[in-house]
Amino acid sequence: MKTFDLIIIGSGPGGHSAALAAGKAGLRTAIVESGPLGGTCLNWGCIPTKLFLGATEPITGIQAQARLRLASGSMTVDLPALQKRKTALLSGSRKSIEQSLAACGVELIRGRADIVSATTIRVQGEENREIGCKHLILATGSSPSWFPGMEPDHEVILDSTDLLELAETPDSLAIIGAGAIGLEMGQFWDRMGTKITLIEGMDRVAPTEDPEISKVIATALKRAKWTLSTGKKVAGITVKDGNAVVAMEDGTTFEADKALVAVGRKPNSKDLNLDKAGITTVGRGWIKTDAFLQAAPNIYAIGDVNGRTLLAHAASDQGEYAVRHILGTKTGAYAPGPIPGCIYGSTEVIRTGQTGEELKAQGKEVLISRSMLSANPISQSHGASAGVVKVTWSQGKVQGISAVGHGVSHLITLCEIAVKDGWTRGKVEGIIFAHPTLDEGLKAALLSEQVEG
Amino acid sequence: MKTFDLIIIGSGPGGHSAALAAGKAGLRTAIVESGPLGGTCLNWGCIPTKLFLGATEPITGIQAQARLRLASGSMTVDLPALQKRKTALLSGSRKSIEQSLAACGVELIRGRADIVSATTIRVQGEENREIGCKHLILATGSSPSWFPGMEPDHEVILDSTDLLELAETPDSLAIIGAGAIGLEMGQFWDRMGTKITLIEGMDRVAPTEDPEISKVIATALKRAKWTLSTGKKVAGITVKDGNAVVAMEDGTTFEADKALVAVGRKPNSKDLNLDKAGITTVGRGWIKTDAFLQAAPNIYAIGDVNGRTLLAHAASDQGEYAVRHILGTKTGAYAPGPIPGCIYGSTEVIRTGQTGEELKAQGKEVLISRSMLSANPISQSHGASAGVVKVTWSQGKVQGISAVGHGVSHLITLCEIAVKDGWTRGKVEGIIFAHPTLDEGLKAALLSEQVEG
Repeated sequence: MKTFDLIIIGSGPGGHSAALAAGKAGLRTAIVESGPLGGTCLNWGCIPTKLFLGATEPITGIQAQARLRLASGSMTVDLPALQKRKTALLSGSRKSIEQSLAACGVELIRGRADIVSATTIRVQGEENREIGCKHLILATGSSPSWFPGMEPDHEVILDSTDLLELAETPDSLAIIGAGAIGLEMGQFWDRMGTKITLIEGMDRVAPTEDPEISKVIATALKRAKWTLSTGKKVAGITVKDGNAVVAMEDGTTFEADKALVAVGRKPNSKDLNLDKAGITTVGRGWIKTDAFLQAAPNIYAIGDVNGRTLLAHAASDQGEYAVRHILGTKTGAYAPGPIPGCIYGSTEVIRTGQTGEELKAQGKEVLISRSMLSANPISQSHGASAGVVKVTWSQGKVQGISAVGHGVSHLITLCEIAVKDGWTRGKVEGIIFAHPTLDEGLKAALLSEQVEG
Repeated sequence: MKTFDLIIIGSGPGGHSAALAAGKAGLRTAIVESGPLGGTCLNWGCIPTKLFLGATEPITGIQAQARLRLASGSMTVDLPALQKRKTALLSGSRKSIEQSLAACGVELIRGRADIVSATTIRVQGEENREIGCKHLILATGSSPSWFPGMEPDHEVILDSTDLLELAETPDSLAIIGAGAIGLEMGQFWDRMGTKITLIEGMDRVAPTEDPEISKVIATALKRAKWTLSTGKKVAGITVKDGNAVVAMEDGTTFEADKALVAVGRKPNSKDLNLDKAGITTVGRGWIKTDAFLQAAPNIYAIGDVNGRTLLAHAASDQGEYAVRHILGTKTGAYAPGPIPGCIYGSTEVIRTGQTGEELKAQGKEVLISRSMLSANPISQSHGASAGVVKVTWSQGKVQGISAVGHGVSHLITLCEIAVKDGWTRGKVEGIIFAHPTLDEGLKAALLSEQVEG
């Protein structure tokens, strides 16, 4: 039985980052992947959605200038051509991943892995084999999930993966769930000409964001003629004459060409035979990890599958930590600090650090400062000036930043640094912000009066 | 004679910032302005050019997607409507400036100011008057300049101010000078359908930028079918049958509907009677300042007119420094640290801190790290992935960053912080960069191998 210092199961951002770090550090490393390299992020997540949003962005731009009566025109996107480009780009990226692994001396093993013991992994692929390891990293990610009564049939009732593969633009789309996936996908298909109905069981769109942020998004979506339904739950979705029929708990129903179920994700943990290594899970199967991301001695669980933060860059960071912990170059508990998050599209959202509500729940004194993007010349130039940047402060230091508006995803790392480095007002005053930039919207928020939240 | 603690001449970014700071600090302050409030930046510079570029950006977006055969379409901009919106936005901004001055108790005096003595200013406006001051800030800015033989007639041979007022799109435009003004204006008119010829006397476009940056811009402009001429000087421009005829020193000539002369700017200093206060100038009239931005005891010169850095945000920073120096809250020499600079448009450029050549000239050991934006998913999604981010290092710390590519102006403040805070490789490794973002192009550059420049 071939034995490695480290076996990694899953080649998404978490597993890939861990493999590169381990390979570079000289660990004999294997990475096992049963599907396409790159996991959800590359194949059915971040990357294809951003490609779709980037390709259709001029449509929103034309609409914004037309609304100001400055321009007229249109752009028609060739969906099959876009799908073809997506396929080519993803294929190229998968090849890059393969090359990067090889360059670091990491062995790539194709097949489905499960646990035989804490030090033995079975891989079922073209040939079945067992491999041994001193350390194991579980990075198997997550998959779309649904509530009872809305199970995707993958033809009419779709999950996010299905929706990214459509060859034809639906006339109408009902989106169940107004989180990042629902909002991003909705914005893409809206640009393609699809009539969007967005249904959220919580009382507002983007329910995990600051309520002020949700309000700006809702206004933008209504302006774009989306039908919004919040605070009402879906009882079930059925297919009738090839259309999706969404039945609400209040007895009302409506039809759409397709329905997207984007109500959450579930961990890919059930086929791993976790019990063979004494690993336990919580909730829907999220792998329980300690302060060092360990699920059992010498076994780490990183990325979506541990349920901590379902974001590609969080997984990468955890993967790098796990390898350093194995190497002994990091011995302290995993403490990533603020983790940035973005929702992309025509109206974008960012968040890093803690919101006012989160700080108050910890009993901290909170001050808020904010600026409206309507005064920002870059926002004005795009005819898209609805937006706000909101900063939370505690003891004179920046604790968190949220923003919503055109192009605010570009502010995310700058905001991240402001939170991470605990910027004070004095620090901000010492920075020369280039003029004119969207960054000045952040500056204005950081320097505006701090008031009780 | 009414006397103030501080008189400021000029209400551009420098004067305006100084006035707000002084007013808030309780200084009896007057600001004198002979033209529209806001100076060049608001009225004929940063703001209208960014409005023009923002409004036409979808045109470039459509072209980029069409080049990939993913989309077809067009957008037509209504130039008179755009000019009207510009007028309305600028008028609103001028009103905001006026209100902000009033809110800080700053007296706004309309008229042309000159110096009677170090403590007396004459203002010639609707009524002529003299006003007294303990301190004086000269913030009179700069104006377009030209070389002999290319003096604008403001009809066919234009300066940047004229070009921003055009009511009709010229069929062809010859741009003399491939600096920020020429490049930004060229990109706007190119999008409007104008055939662009760009002429630069130095050996490359954007001659003050890193040569690697210039190369990427030149490639993009050639791809956009611009006619480029570098390393050859213009002998003169004349008007023949209503067209501009550009004669080169090598004897060749060519015609265009209009010519833009964008070869530099000259200080607005000659009518100030500087000698009455013992103020001297250098070169074309740039006011000589000491390490405290003082041109004479209690007299400061800030912004373009002192010739240090012809950028709006540099002027603002100098204005704020001057007021703090007057108040005694800053006593050290003016030391702004790295100053960010951007060129906007379809292919953007940023620069902050020091280039490799600048560092070498100081005898410092220099290492360079870089990343190509072709691998960045956000660049790819816009079908605009030509670009590079280039970092200079000395003694393990970031010294400067330059970048060129689609949307790189969004990286400027982040780069500024990296230089200002002297980021090390370790610092960068500790930051979670959101995925996917253009910021990851910077991350890749910061973490790529450092090689000799």
